Amino acid sequence: MTEGSDDIQALVALMARLPGLGPRSARRIVLHLIRKRTGQMSELAKLLDSVAVNSRECLTCGNVTDRDECLICTDPARANGEICVVEDVADLWALERGRAFAGRYHVLGGTLSALDEIGPDDLGIPALIDRVSRKGIREVILALNATVDGQTTAHYIAEALEGTDITVTGLAQGVPIGGELDYLDDGTISAALRARRRI
Amino acid sequence: MTEGSDDIQALVALMARLPGLGPRSARRIVLHLIRKRTGQMSELAKLLDSVAVNSRECLTCGNVTDRDECLICTDPARANGEICVVEDVADLWALERGRAFAGRYHVLGGTLSALDEIGPDDLGIPALIDRVSRKGIREVILALNATVDGQTTAHYIAEALEGTDITVTGLAQGVPIGGELDYLDDGTISAALRARRRI
Repeated sequence: MTEGSDDIQALVALMARLPGLGPRSARRIVLHLIRKRTGQMSELAKLLDSVAVNSRECLTCGNVTDRDECLICTDPARANGEICVVEDVADLWALERGRAFAGRYHVLGGTLSALDEIGPDDLGIPALIDRVSRKGIREVILALNATVDGQTTAHYIAEALEGTDITVTGLAQGVPIGGELDYLDDGTISAALRARRRI
Repeated sequence: MTEGSDDIQALVALMARLPGLGPRSARRIVLHLIRKRTGQMSELAKLLDSVAVNSRECLTCGNVTDRDECLICTDPARANGEICVVEDVADLWALERGRAFAGRYHVLGGTLSALDEIGPDDLGIPALIDRVSRKGIREVILALNATVDGQTTAHYIAEALEGTDITVTGLAQGVPIGGELDYLDDGTISAALRARRRI
């Protein structure tokens, strides 16, 4: 009975299972919250409950939302004929933070993986093909991770869209902004060299 | 409106303010919880609410508890005449995990600090002196951090208890278990040398 009460102990154990946290950081957070129990802690409890009850997946794109269709899918300004395909919602959020993309998204929820027995149907790829061929889409941007599974998935989708008049593109590969050549891996350097541009 | 809904955004912002977390880790945790919203997330909301409502400070020692007096203060087996004085509840938890101490605690809730204008009354040191002189206490162990403020506080309490028949002790200083001399600071090495023991 180290941590004060059964509830506190259960809370520490639950917190410690969150990604990026362990027993030590969980204890630190719980103690911090107990100190702020009338403010921050109650607020956090309320928000967690509300988000747990109200969150669902956008029926169109798979984004996290609190309604049937997410704000991006219902925003008429974003119907510009471009669909950006991402692996998961974290990637969608990352792209939105960059404010570089004005179209709509499609969240696969993973990548093809022979090892984990994840096939096209598990990722709703047929639904994606159907969606992009129905709604006046001009371009599908495959913003998948530059991993083996990500690139396999990108190739699969690109092949499935062959023969349609949809342009399929992928993110450029090269030196990250602020990146130093000395610290980059060989693969990135040669990709950046192959894709070199006139300046 | 990057993160799906106002509630999700507020939740990420609140999480990002927890100690050790930032916007990136907060987003990761919130997405993880949304994926497990019917299980882990509701459970976490319930526990946070329960702990926020029920937690309070033990009236005797200042430990976090869900009753008037904590389990350690009400456990007759722990009335061995020893009181261990700690800076905060995290230190008490750390000592309990070590299972090395069988007596009771006193949580100061901080250290004396001229800079932050924290004096003996702010830390309830008069209450501590009163507590240890009333209840058949033989020994007060000052388990305070080996920082300047911690050691100042330790000296203040030791002086305040001078002239009573209570033994005042402090934690031993020396090489941590598993510690390599090469990586230790000079202060620790000379403290360990001064306190050397026959083996």
